Amino acid sequence: MTRTQDAPWSEPLEAVLREWAKTAAARDKAGGTAFHERRLLRESGLLRLSLPVEYGGDGAPWSTTLDVVRRMAQVDSSLAHLFAFHHLQLATIRLFGSDAQIDHWSSETVAQGWFWGNALNPLDKSTRALPSNAEDAGGYLFDGRKSFCSGARDSDQLLASAFDGDGRLLIGVTPTNRAGIAVLDDWDNMGQRQTDSGTVIFERVPIAADELLLNPGPLSSPFATLRPLLAQSILCHIYLGIGEGALQAARDATLSQTRPWIASQAERPAEDPYVIVHFGDFFVALEGARLLVERSMQAFDRAWERGLALTESERGEVAVAVASAKVAAARAGLDVAHRMFEVTGARSTTAALRLDRFWRNVRVHTLHDPLDYKVRELGDWALNGRIPKPSFYS
Amino acid sequence: MTRTQDAPWSEPLEAVLREWAKTAAARDKAGGTAFHERRLLRESGLLRLSLPVEYGGDGAPWSTTLDVVRRMAQVDSSLAHLFAFHHLQLATIRLFGSDAQIDHWSSETVAQGWFWGNALNPLDKSTRALPSNAEDAGGYLFDGRKSFCSGARDSDQLLASAFDGDGRLLIGVTPTNRAGIAVLDDWDNMGQRQTDSGTVIFERVPIAADELLLNPGPLSSPFATLRPLLAQSILCHIYLGIGEGALQAARDATLSQTRPWIASQAERPAEDPYVIVHFGDFFVALEGARLLVERSMQAFDRAWERGLALTESERGEVAVAVASAKVAAARAGLDVAHRMFEVTGARSTTAALRLDRFWRNVRVHTLHDPLDYKVRELGDWALNGRIPKPSFYS
Amino acid sequence: MTRTQDAPWSEPLEAVLREWAKTAAARDKAGGTAFHERRLLRESGLLRLSLPVEYGGDGAPWSTTLDVVRRMAQVDSSLAHLFAFHHLQLATIRLFGSDAQIDHWSSETVAQGWFWGNALNPLDKSTRALPSNAEDAGGYLFDGRKSFCSGARDSDQLLASAFDGDGRLLIGVTPTNRAGIAVLDDWDNMGQRQTDSGTVIFERVPIAADELLLNPGPLSSPFATLRPLLAQSILCHIYLGIGEGALQAARDATLSQTRPWIASQAERPAEDPYVIVHFGDFFVALEGARLLVERSMQAFDRAWERGLALTESERGEVAVAVASAKVAAARAGLDVAHRMFEVTGARSTTAALRLDRFWRNVRVHTLHDPLDYKVRELGDWALNGRIPKPSFYS
Amino acid sequence: MTRTQDAPWSEPLEAVLREWAKTAAARDKAGGTAFHERRLLRESGLLRLSLPVEYGGDGAPWSTTLDVVRRMAQVDSSLAHLFAFHHLQLATIRLFGSDAQIDHWSSETVAQGWFWGNALNPLDKSTRALPSNAEDAGGYLFDGRKSFCSGARDSDQLLASAFDGDGRLLIGVTPTNRAGIAVLDDWDNMGQRQTDSGTVIFERVPIAADELLLNPGPLSSPFATLRPLLAQSILCHIYLGIGEGALQAARDATLSQTRPWIASQAERPAEDPYVIVHFGDFFVALEGARLLVERSMQAFDRAWERGLALTESERGEVAVAVASAKVAAARAGLDVAHRMFEVTGARSTTAALRLDRFWRNVRVHTLHDPLDYKVRELGDWALNGRIPKPSFYS
Repeated sequence: MTRTQDAPWSEPLEAVLREWAKTAAARDKAGGTAFHERRLLRESGLLRLSLPVEYGGDGAPWSTTLDVVRRMAQVDSSLAHLFAFHHLQLATIRLFGSDAQIDHWSSETVAQGWFWGNALNPLDKSTRALPSNAEDAGGYLFDGRKSFCSGARDSDQLLASAFDGDGRLLIGVTPTNRAGIAVLDDWDNMGQRQTDSGTVIFERVPIAADELLLNPGPLSSPFATLRPLLAQSILCHIYLGIGEGALQAARDATLSQTRPWIASQAERPAEDPYVIVHFGDFFVALEGARLLVERSMQAFDRAWERGLALTESERGEVAVAVASAKVAAARAGLDVAHRMFEVTGARSTTAALRLDRFWRNVRVHTLHDPLDYKVRELGDWALNGRIPKPSFYS
Repeated sequence: MTRTQDAPWSEPLEAVLREWAKTAAARDKAGGTAFHERRLLRESGLLRLSLPVEYGGDGAPWSTTLDVVRRMAQVDSSLAHLFAFHHLQLATIRLFGSDAQIDHWSSETVAQGWFWGNALNPLDKSTRALPSNAEDAGGYLFDGRKSFCSGARDSDQLLASAFDGDGRLLIGVTPTNRAGIAVLDDWDNMGQRQTDSGTVIFERVPIAADELLLNPGPLSSPFATLRPLLAQSILCHIYLGIGEGALQAARDATLSQTRPWIASQAERPAEDPYVIVHFGDFFVALEGARLLVERSMQAFDRAWERGLALTESERGEVAVAVASAKVAAARAGLDVAHRMFEVTGARSTTAALRLDRFWRNVRVHTLHDPLDYKVRELGDWALNGRIPKPSFYS
Repeated sequence: MTRTQDAPWSEPLEAVLREWAKTAAARDKAGGTAFHERRLLRESGLLRLSLPVEYGGDGAPWSTTLDVVRRMAQVDSSLAHLFAFHHLQLATIRLFGSDAQIDHWSSETVAQGWFWGNALNPLDKSTRALPSNAEDAGGYLFDGRKSFCSGARDSDQLLASAFDGDGRLLIGVTPTNRAGIAVLDDWDNMGQRQTDSGTVIFERVPIAADELLLNPGPLSSPFATLRPLLAQSILCHIYLGIGEGALQAARDATLSQTRPWIASQAERPAEDPYVIVHFGDFFVALEGARLLVERSMQAFDRAWERGLALTESERGEVAVAVASAKVAAARAGLDVAHRMFEVTGARSTTAALRLDRFWRNVRVHTLHDPLDYKVRELGDWALNGRIPKPSFYS
Repeated sequence: MTRTQDAPWSEPLEAVLREWAKTAAARDKAGGTAFHERRLLRESGLLRLSLPVEYGGDGAPWSTTLDVVRRMAQVDSSLAHLFAFHHLQLATIRLFGSDAQIDHWSSETVAQGWFWGNALNPLDKSTRALPSNAEDAGGYLFDGRKSFCSGARDSDQLLASAFDGDGRLLIGVTPTNRAGIAVLDDWDNMGQRQTDSGTVIFERVPIAADELLLNPGPLSSPFATLRPLLAQSILCHIYLGIGEGALQAARDATLSQTRPWIASQAERPAEDPYVIVHFGDFFVALEGARLLVERSMQAFDRAWERGLALTESERGEVAVAVASAKVAAARAGLDVAHRMFEVTGARSTTAALRLDRFWRNVRVHTLHDPLDYKVRELGDWALNGRIPKPSFYS
């Protein structure tokens, strides 16, 4: 992994983060679409980060791209998610699409400065792929409502899924502004409030044959099944970033307090024996998670470079590494965000600080798929030696 | 304890709760003063609940009054807090005041239908008790800003504290609308959003000699030190009630869901093996806390009846029982509110449900005084045989 | 519940416990049969404790009998188990046997001073009930090996189970010294080392028709299904007693230490801030468990008094109370026994003290039946409103 | 770190481990000195592992040497400790001794095949360094009893500590068989039963001036303070190895069982949903600890290579990494050893298996110095930015 601070995008990134930080609490309250902050992201050049150099991208490995996600999540986990999912869409094309499709959408993304949004939800069977009219052989009409479409608002391109009459999952690409597509402004959630993960309505939207990722298609090889592992890795980095951000906020709050609890013999809260060990607990949990996340990304980068040569069992080992990172990062993030108030105390609960956003964000985001079943995957590996079976969540 | 459901106030209570429940989520979003819901409470007669029958009250023991608090907290923990603190003010007069003061304020509370608010904060030394002018021998002028004044808005009477030139804590009673008192509408917190725990400004407000609770005065006997134990018991019931409310909400959400997780072999979420054991964990934690809370209130009722005959060591045993209940209820409430989402899943995080209010409420309220130091009190008892030293928090 | 200390058996009990305590650590090392300590128990009269007064017993309710078990388990959880299982055998006759059988074995137990042992194991299908020869109509020959036969060594009477050709569970009574019975001295376990829970071999042992508990028979009514609840309640009291004994041992060790850890600013270990809060944690966990256990026994006593009038749903509520107590007592006992060393430190690990016996005992005993499935029962109640389905473990 | 399996010592190591494994349970029961297993270790050449090549050693970095310790601890944590402490004595000479001393003892260790034992205990002030007679300028007579002298039995050389009249800590080297030294066979502990951590009695034992590590002396530079970090790192590897060994034992036991719990719908225990997630929990805890341990050793190796150029703050960062590893490894090891029985069940508690040895070993060893104070060090770093202050335990 290239250390973020040494990279050419380091300065633009830090500039973006400084700007985001100013309004992060206020925007958590407001919710809705972060147009200004999304524009800063477009202007920063970071939307090109993971794209290969040959297409005009920065060619950053996934470990680097996701380390940027983690860094963003310390400040604003909603925008970190949007940034990450933009790159996930591009990775999806790379893994499921044809060479021509990869070439086209990669280079256009750089040329047009596109920001990609998500309308791919493999659990949501309410969007159907209807047969298109005769003149477009192989095309479909996507029709139905999709929920949880993160980043669809204010996006240029969408990756969308639908099921055909035989129950086959089809994934297609479309400009967001194509006729028949309505992106609703209806996301209002207890956390991750600016991810715009609302509804997109497709009314008989034509998706041409060459807009469908059919060759090789979804999850078609061990290499293609890296897509869910990348999605899971994104989650890891967001959980970890939130936990790190919460720790930093707890530290700032504690150091700024001067009056210890009346029953404490410490001179100030930062010297209280119980306050200090809470920080020790937070720190060791985050450190362990961080190393698991880093290790999983090293494995992921290697697997990505293997391409179609990647075997099932090699992919399985990456999956185990990612699942371990996921469980540890989720638990550490949740624990720090939940317990940070035990060090910062009653006065830190004022709505002006909105310190609860760390908990609300990580609480919501860790429900992406149930942690119990991720632990189960690890147990099945540790006990029965079975690698996780690839799916859109494993 | 008289079971709530058999009591004459049972029906009015349930009517109030049904009405509160309709808007609890919306009012959590809005914050501010719950005028309508406070009026329902006034009209229900429940503000008389703890007052002795001789003054026109219902003569309910504290175990019963606080069981009503718990029941309220299942639905709306902000209003439960206001109701409880109203009764705490009356108890404070009973414990710190003279017979004449007790007679006067108790009977007037019934006659006028008063709702009491709080401006007593023994940690807040910024309000001073200045010498009054000569014509009021023994009177003072209260002057300064007080924070965390729960229930001061829309109240009729206030209990207020100030420190005189010698650093002595003085507690006085005043109508809320006395000249010089300004109750600000400035409470905006991440949780307990309708407790109106904002600022009250006293500008040279005259408090007459007979409005001061000097005889016997604050914490003047083992009996008088039941005041902090009552305050702590209120916290216990609110934590427990929030936990119970969260469990009920989690149950409703789970039972209404029809689609299990894709990796689950259960027919529906309520049959999933992991979902079920989470509920088992929640249940056993709340049951244990509930019994500790009930036991502590039996001890408290007995101590209250002992009156001035109560000894230090008898008081100490009540304090241990209350502290045990506090720690267990806080942990159970926090745990259920934190982890309930692991059973209810991603869709339950929509802002429409505002299920995060359970966590925000219990998270904020459990910071009233640090849990670590309460556990320490219990350890000092279990290890060194020392009973908790009375203070406004023990 | 009659408080143990006020009862006529209080003095004999304390005398027995004092004697047991002297050698508890040494006998934990030695293992094998505690002949001397069993004789003390016989001589104390406590083997009559639960038997009705009409048969010459003390007529103690089960809450009282099991409180004695808890008290014993603080000192020696192996002997507590043997004492408890003696009474469980008598309860089994009361629940599964005919009036004549109850009369006979109850009065003979008092008259002969019998100590009952266990050879009933409903999961162990390796003992068969073969058809007896013609002259004993309705009798059987029990044949096979039984494991986990607690208290069979040095016992006078056994309750034994076997399966007939149709897979029906038969439970019979036999003197331990009947021809064909061999009680092996083969129990060697990491914990509960003097429960003699070894093997009993039955070689075509005749069990007469009137020695079989057929009328009404095993688990034949809600009342009869109190048997597994009594067995589970015994476990609760043993777990709790072990936890309490561990806490006492930890307290003794801590108070006797004079030198705090070099990095501690306390004058002695008992004043160390971290040591103290560990004790607070232990205390609150045990208190919560204790109240759950007491509550479950109140429910059990009431159910027992209901006799055959007991309904399924009444029994179900007792089952939920017992399961809650079981889970909390197991967790508290395990936690205290596991973590007590964090306060007592390295020097307390000398084999001379054998403080690890608390952990080994509670660790072994909590495996009687899986805790996960007990939590599951509670979850099924809390979520789905289903009462536990009666079995030999529920 | 050179992967153990690729190294020249890999085969001898595995041979030793296979032999140890055969008797590990039986020797845990027996306690006492493992003469045969110690001889295998001597013969394996592994006692030379950490010594520089120039002295005839294998020149393995500390990461490698301690990885061997971890591997050993999976099988027998007592012997792992003796092996590790042998190398710790050699490191101590390297860090506290003069070049001549380093040369002498390093080369003699290889030439004579010495096994070093420990009589250095900086907390034990009962051994005094008395002025020697005139003819040995600068020498002392060591006099007193030392406890916790791991590996002194059957050793060739000892590192011993004593305090002179001014309270200065002196560390000296002596052959174990020098007149005046008595190594008692008095170690009998609940865990780590073959570490021979018993008493060594010094009766006016002459320690010559050139046998004292005075130049540069104990903890005399940031480099010299790597000694306690190496000691702490040894602990990390032993905790982790015990946890890994426990997981392996739990896995073996679970896979060998065929009958699931009666309330389980799984075909066999290894398919039970609760059994599987316990393994997932164990796995992720051990993985996180393992990465923290590896990372700390990379930092340690780098610091070691820095030698006297090592700065305080560089040393501080290593200390934080080691402390993180220590806390995580202790918790993971304790948790797996405590909870493994919840998957292996009642039958796995037979004394024949002695599976409790994992818990007894890790429970005892994690008391070396209090975990609470190690967490406190981490909290002080995370909150206050203070690096751990060097001492013999930090």
